[in-house]
Amino acid sequence: MNMAQKPSIPKGTRDFSPQEMLRRKYIFNTIERVFQKYGFLPLETPAMENLETLTGKYGEEGDRLIFKILKRGADLDRAVQEGSKSLAAEALRYDLTVPFARYVVQNQHEITFPFKRYQIQPVWRADRPQKGRYREFYQCDADVIGSKSLLNEVDLVLLIVEVFQALNLNVKIMVNNRKALFGFAQYLGVEDRAVEFITKLDKQDKIGDRIFDELLDEEFPASAVEKARMILSESILGDYESRVGRFDYLMELFVQNTNDLGREGLQEVRFVLDSIKPHLPRTGPGLTTEFNIALARGLDYYTGAIFEVKALEGSLQSSICGGGRYDDLTGIFGLKNMSGVGISFGADRIYDVLLETGKFPAELGGSTKLLFANFGEAEAMHCLRLLRTVREAGIPAELYPDAVKMAKQFKYADDKGIPYVAIIGENELKQGIVTVKDMKSGEQKAVEQDALIDLLR
Amino acid sequence: MNMAQKPSIPKGTRDFSPQEMLRRKYIFNTIERVFQKYGFLPLETPAMENLETLTGKYGEEGDRLIFKILKRGADLDRAVQEGSKSLAAEALRYDLTVPFARYVVQNQHEITFPFKRYQIQPVWRADRPQKGRYREFYQCDADVIGSKSLLNEVDLVLLIVEVFQALNLNVKIMVNNRKALFGFAQYLGVEDRAVEFITKLDKQDKIGDRIFDELLDEEFPASAVEKARMILSESILGDYESRVGRFDYLMELFVQNTNDLGREGLQEVRFVLDSIKPHLPRTGPGLTTEFNIALARGLDYYTGAIFEVKALEGSLQSSICGGGRYDDLTGIFGLKNMSGVGISFGADRIYDVLLETGKFPAELGGSTKLLFANFGEAEAMHCLRLLRTVREAGIPAELYPDAVKMAKQFKYADDKGIPYVAIIGENELKQGIVTVKDMKSGEQKAVEQDALIDLLR
Repeated sequence: MNMAQKPSIPKGTRDFSPQEMLRRKYIFNTIERVFQKYGFLPLETPAMENLETLTGKYGEEGDRLIFKILKRGADLDRAVQEGSKSLAAEALRYDLTVPFARYVVQNQHEITFPFKRYQIQPVWRADRPQKGRYREFYQCDADVIGSKSLLNEVDLVLLIVEVFQALNLNVKIMVNNRKALFGFAQYLGVEDRAVEFITKLDKQDKIGDRIFDELLDEEFPASAVEKARMILSESILGDYESRVGRFDYLMELFVQNTNDLGREGLQEVRFVLDSIKPHLPRTGPGLTTEFNIALARGLDYYTGAIFEVKALEGSLQSSICGGGRYDDLTGIFGLKNMSGVGISFGADRIYDVLLETGKFPAELGGSTKLLFANFGEAEAMHCLRLLRTVREAGIPAELYPDAVKMAKQFKYADDKGIPYVAIIGENELKQGIVTVKDMKSGEQKAVEQDALIDLLR
Repeated sequence: MNMAQKPSIPKGTRDFSPQEMLRRKYIFNTIERVFQKYGFLPLETPAMENLETLTGKYGEEGDRLIFKILKRGADLDRAVQEGSKSLAAEALRYDLTVPFARYVVQNQHEITFPFKRYQIQPVWRADRPQKGRYREFYQCDADVIGSKSLLNEVDLVLLIVEVFQALNLNVKIMVNNRKALFGFAQYLGVEDRAVEFITKLDKQDKIGDRIFDELLDEEFPASAVEKARMILSESILGDYESRVGRFDYLMELFVQNTNDLGREGLQEVRFVLDSIKPHLPRTGPGLTTEFNIALARGLDYYTGAIFEVKALEGSLQSSICGGGRYDDLTGIFGLKNMSGVGISFGADRIYDVLLETGKFPAELGGSTKLLFANFGEAEAMHCLRLLRTVREAGIPAELYPDAVKMAKQFKYADDKGIPYVAIIGENELKQGIVTVKDMKSGEQKAVEQDALIDLLR
């Protein structure tokens, strides 16, 4: 305490400055407003879960990445005897999905289903930090659990559309279905290695047609790989409308081969894409919605629809939103037959895209609009009254607290991005006026004090 | 993973259900809106800090209550050799003040001072959980750092007033000053035990005049205790206006005894209370602002003004907001002479008071206003269009996803607190109308579909 320390923060974590926070809030508030508009209600779970709640839910690698909390007064001697397990009984939230499943099972008798909840909270992973990958980051999830209706999928896609329209971002929304994927694997005769095959398909997005070589390298039958190549090799990422041919071709294949699973998957895709069509916006930023048979998303627990969103502006290649249907999320905690469907927005990535493409609004909500300059006690006391009036009109405003040089006060306004400075010196005080300086243009204008609010609006 | 676990959460932590979250958001949003109106900008720091950033900042007891993060792959053998210190290098945020100080020092060359920031984030303490005390809870802080002007104190008290007016809660705001307290200790001749004396004074609020016996028990001179009793013994919690006599009496004592410190403290109190007076609301819930020489607040680092707020409604005795001025918060990290003043709202306690006194608004923002009942696919498809129109009007609405019995759909609306259900069955579809059921009164009304939005407003 007495020694001055050079302060720093743990690697992989971040401070968010006011400037960054206003931008982040713009994203979170936009997403949250749309969540609420679609009937999702907020839920929050604790940062810590019992270690056993999390262990075994994210695979072996995931288990290693869970941040554990050291038990208070953890006893080394005991730890040596009982093993390192006795050091920790709690751990930090790794994602929002497992705590949500835990919450649903724990409160199943109080919850009315279908349960539509959203959750915007940080998660922690002891991952190796690198560009764009952090040890602490926010997830923004919305899920419906307890309903198998495809109308939930329809609503979620429309929700995604609305969020990116509100953020004024040109995006591509890709839709696929696990059943179609497994059906496809069946059709190719590789159903015994379906997960492996699907995982490879998902890479086409990144490595293109090299997936076919890799499939051969991994000893998938040459005939199956050839069939797959026929269907996927050219650019598979077309608009649903113009690609309806491929969809129909696949459907025909599945029908001919009485591949019920594949057919069902495609029918679900069609229902979702057809249902949203009349409700897509006619104006606003560009929007593409398309079927993509190669879209798989890594997570094992998806069983039906799969969604993924990519920005069509900026240089970011990875997805900025994704989701899908799962049939057994709560089974791990003993509650069976709870089908759900959910989506998750990648706020950090959306932030990067909006910043790169200059899509943040010029005036972000919540920042100060007017600074009253301080010319000394008498003037300041007078300003307090005006300050109150401006704030009562709902306009964020402040009075510079010290009567220092004007240059310093103007710099303060500039640095803080305050667009107007109100100057009430001796003259203005006598005449009952206020001089307002526009910090952008540098122009000054004297107005009656009563006219101040009109000027600001 | 394959074994069903009975799920639970760590003791001292809480899940917040949608119902609780909407109420919490009402409180946080109200506070945040006022913070922003007063020119404070948001800041967020990581949940984890380097252990050394936190250690030694909260006293010995505090050190024990810090949650430490187990190092990834923490090695027991090494721990046995090097001691348990090698088990953890990071810890969870214990409050928002130390991370704020750390942030200011770390970014001092980028920050424009005075720096006005607010921060609303959870903190963690390995405290013994009990009623009203949790291991994870939110703090809501606003601080100005880098200005000694008392106008900051004035602004913060006005901010507090505005928050509780907005929350419609009758409160008492008490103001004191550490200088007046130390001056008082000087006047009584107990300045060598000033902190001990002040800590005892602070208890009067809880144990009343028994503090005088305890002072005697702890061998404070009888003459000093008698003098203190003369000034404090009767109810000291009066309105500033009516207690101006006590304030003047103390001021006279300090002047007579050339007690400069005490005089300065009282002058500061007077400046703050006099300056806010013309700006206090004339309407709204009750509000008392008063000087209270016995108010000390525990934290050692306060050096000037002290604020504390108590609810005048409900049964809660403890404070719901507090703060004060500190002269050397960043000194611990090597940055000297940074005076600041801040306040902190106790959101959990405010929640309890609002719940007990029934002060939460009947309709909380963000909840669904209209449910479209589901009569089957054709009707549902038709509802999608109306649903879009309602949402476009900014009204949160949803379509029940499954065509189940009406009773179940009504129950869903009831449980979720949705005030209106729109019924579009075969008849309504033919006639182009919609039957709207008011869930509270049970009344049903048929309107043209175009009139639906007007009805909801």
